[in-house]
Amino acid sequence: MADVDDLILISVDDHLIEPPDLFADHLDAKYQDRAPRLERNDAGSDVWVFNGIAMETVALNAVAGRPKEEYGMEPQSLDEVRPGCYDVHERVKDMDAGGVLASMNFPSFPTFTARVFETSDLDLSSALVRAYNDWHIDAWCGAYPARFIPMAVPMMWDPEACAAEVRRCAAKGCHSLSFTENPAALGRPSFHDPHWDPLWKACVDTGTVVSIHLGSSGKMAIPAVDSPPDVMITLQPMNIQSAAADLLWSRVIKQFPALRIALSEGGTGWIPYFLDRLDRTYEMHRAWTQQDFGGKLPSEVFRERFLTCFISDPIGVEMRHHIGVDNMCWEADFPHSDSMWPTAPEELGAVFDKHDVPDDEVRKMTHENAMRWYSFDPFTHIAREDATVGALRRSAVGHDVAITPLSTRVRTPDEKLEGFRARARRAVAAG
Amino acid sequence: MADVDDLILISVDDHLIEPPDLFADHLDAKYQDRAPRLERNDAGSDVWVFNGIAMETVALNAVAGRPKEEYGMEPQSLDEVRPGCYDVHERVKDMDAGGVLASMNFPSFPTFTARVFETSDLDLSSALVRAYNDWHIDAWCGAYPARFIPMAVPMMWDPEACAAEVRRCAAKGCHSLSFTENPAALGRPSFHDPHWDPLWKACVDTGTVVSIHLGSSGKMAIPAVDSPPDVMITLQPMNIQSAAADLLWSRVIKQFPALRIALSEGGTGWIPYFLDRLDRTYEMHRAWTQQDFGGKLPSEVFRERFLTCFISDPIGVEMRHHIGVDNMCWEADFPHSDSMWPTAPEELGAVFDKHDVPDDEVRKMTHENAMRWYSFDPFTHIAREDATVGALRRSAVGHDVAITPLSTRVRTPDEKLEGFRARARRAVAAG
Repeated sequence: MADVDDLILISVDDHLIEPPDLFADHLDAKYQDRAPRLERNDAGSDVWVFNGIAMETVALNAVAGRPKEEYGMEPQSLDEVRPGCYDVHERVKDMDAGGVLASMNFPSFPTFTARVFETSDLDLSSALVRAYNDWHIDAWCGAYPARFIPMAVPMMWDPEACAAEVRRCAAKGCHSLSFTENPAALGRPSFHDPHWDPLWKACVDTGTVVSIHLGSSGKMAIPAVDSPPDVMITLQPMNIQSAAADLLWSRVIKQFPALRIALSEGGTGWIPYFLDRLDRTYEMHRAWTQQDFGGKLPSEVFRERFLTCFISDPIGVEMRHHIGVDNMCWEADFPHSDSMWPTAPEELGAVFDKHDVPDDEVRKMTHENAMRWYSFDPFTHIAREDATVGALRRSAVGHDVAITPLSTRVRTPDEKLEGFRARARRAVAAG
Repeated sequence: MADVDDLILISVDDHLIEPPDLFADHLDAKYQDRAPRLERNDAGSDVWVFNGIAMETVALNAVAGRPKEEYGMEPQSLDEVRPGCYDVHERVKDMDAGGVLASMNFPSFPTFTARVFETSDLDLSSALVRAYNDWHIDAWCGAYPARFIPMAVPMMWDPEACAAEVRRCAAKGCHSLSFTENPAALGRPSFHDPHWDPLWKACVDTGTVVSIHLGSSGKMAIPAVDSPPDVMITLQPMNIQSAAADLLWSRVIKQFPALRIALSEGGTGWIPYFLDRLDRTYEMHRAWTQQDFGGKLPSEVFRERFLTCFISDPIGVEMRHHIGVDNMCWEADFPHSDSMWPTAPEELGAVFDKHDVPDDEVRKMTHENAMRWYSFDPFTHIAREDATVGALRRSAVGHDVAITPLSTRVRTPDEKLEGFRARARRAVAAG
């Protein structure tokens, strides 16, 4: 096993927090006065205000660099988070210090499917999606081409328009689309409806991966409104199994044999059992359910078409040959609480060591699979010897990575618990 | 590894179909005319009629002994299923032929929580639960004491009355209670509410295991109304993860340190990853969520308090030391489609062989754990040498175990698919 310093790390799942000036340079002038704007409310929280609604999730769970006592659903303002959450230049310094060469960044306040942009004026809504994608691809990722895998957000209200947006973004070098784990849960036709076919065709034509992040069905994973937060934290990554099953057995997989899907932040340790369930279901029930994958088993189809990822996941790494080493990627989840920034490389290296993972498999999981799946090649911009954990960290000497309380508003654990419960009550009330 | 003929098999999860005369000898005379009764409707289906409602799930998925083309949500009448589903004498012959020494049988038409018995007249409702339990314990199990682990059904409408019923049944030798994976989903207080404390206390006092079967929240595991049946079949055993997490992090586990829970038909291959998630959640978040398991890790608490089970589950058996060999049991799921009757012993033996499971671990998983957890000792009634797969099968020579079409009403796969879709539509409509 190679030294941690020699690893090259590409993360396929991180998060950015949108800066206040997001729409300034990328939205048509005629819509500027209607664009979402970041305001500080009377409680001292930063909220995005749009279409008459104030959204309080500006920096949900962006706790990297803070002590565990400060974890929780908060923070709620930009001055409670590291600047690397919303400033790309600071972000790259945080990546350097964390040993991360490149990263794919999911959106925050617009939700994973940009559904907050949907209004009765779909021209405005579409303009906002295009502006967001232009900002993300050209300004955020474009500032450091070696360091970011660009990702677009969809127009959920119109598959044809969404397909056109995928093609437009692909022409700019973007080969990832953030989508939902369950369009039916968002009130749209399900994965089993031909409704979405124009979108799948655009993704296939452009080599765009459909990146499905956990939590993108708009539901909180809680059995009861009074379930402790630990229940949700435990279950969140496991619920993506539902999307994996729904897509695997869908017509989409058969009708679009080149379509590829990423299960973002989905973990990997559950997959061996899942694949066994798929094959057993096929063996026992296909005679009446009429499923047909040609000469293949569903587990083989899964390995060809689904990208999986993990943070450290000792079980997934131990069972990697049951999963498929060619479709496992590493992820960092910066700046959320699952992230181990800035010591993620050490924790990952320890898992590789424990299971004696050979170098070629390490390379696949740490960066080669991500490069191939997302058509991303950082080495046209940076030399390999400058891209390692060790080299990046040497370039970041002096950047402050101490774990320190950052809150301007210190909350007690009791207040944090109540914050979670209030969110749960709102989620359950909203159905 | 021992010969399959030498295995001793106790199954902790099977199902019975209620016979028409269930209430005849066990319900007070004053309620006889209001008891549920089995009627054949105009479509030729047997339906239980009670309280003005006709229930069409008389024999849901009871397809043991039928060819795979006949699998599905049906059959819908007693003459479409093996008599061993509803006749205890035939059942024991089916068990003999399948090499199964003993079995715990969950209810069918009353649901896992007997909630169909709830009416505005709670005296009637309680009388029905007591009659059901008396029939199950005294008539069904009592006919062959070596062959059945008795299990009671609850009175969900009253924790005090339910506690009293648990004590009454325990006095008759019953140490298992069928319960729900999520009382909140049934419109009751959740696992986090002290509401249920009298029940937990009764279970602890009497050594009664709370047996939680998948599907016992009254919900169908489908992401969308038009998801293919394969999605539900794949996901069903995985959804019990939600109950496991909800209970593990609940106050119940801490307040009642002797309470034990079985995750019935839950499978085992998902557990290593689940335990890793539990411990990681505890490590990362307990500072704000205020969870406290004393000096133990949540994975240790899980191994002490939760019984798991599997049919063959090659991944679970391979990973058994991550799960806990002392809390894994075998199950048959007779007469449902996951069952491999009558060749389950051979399929189980092949998995044990593949992973070189030593004899002492085989004994634990095949029968010793079930005996200890459920306070059940068949060997006071039967000699060990007569209890093996080989001995039981020798006693059943001549019993018909051929896989043959049994349907009096043959349905095409298309009709079966439509039957599933109709159920899905009803489930989604019912919320």
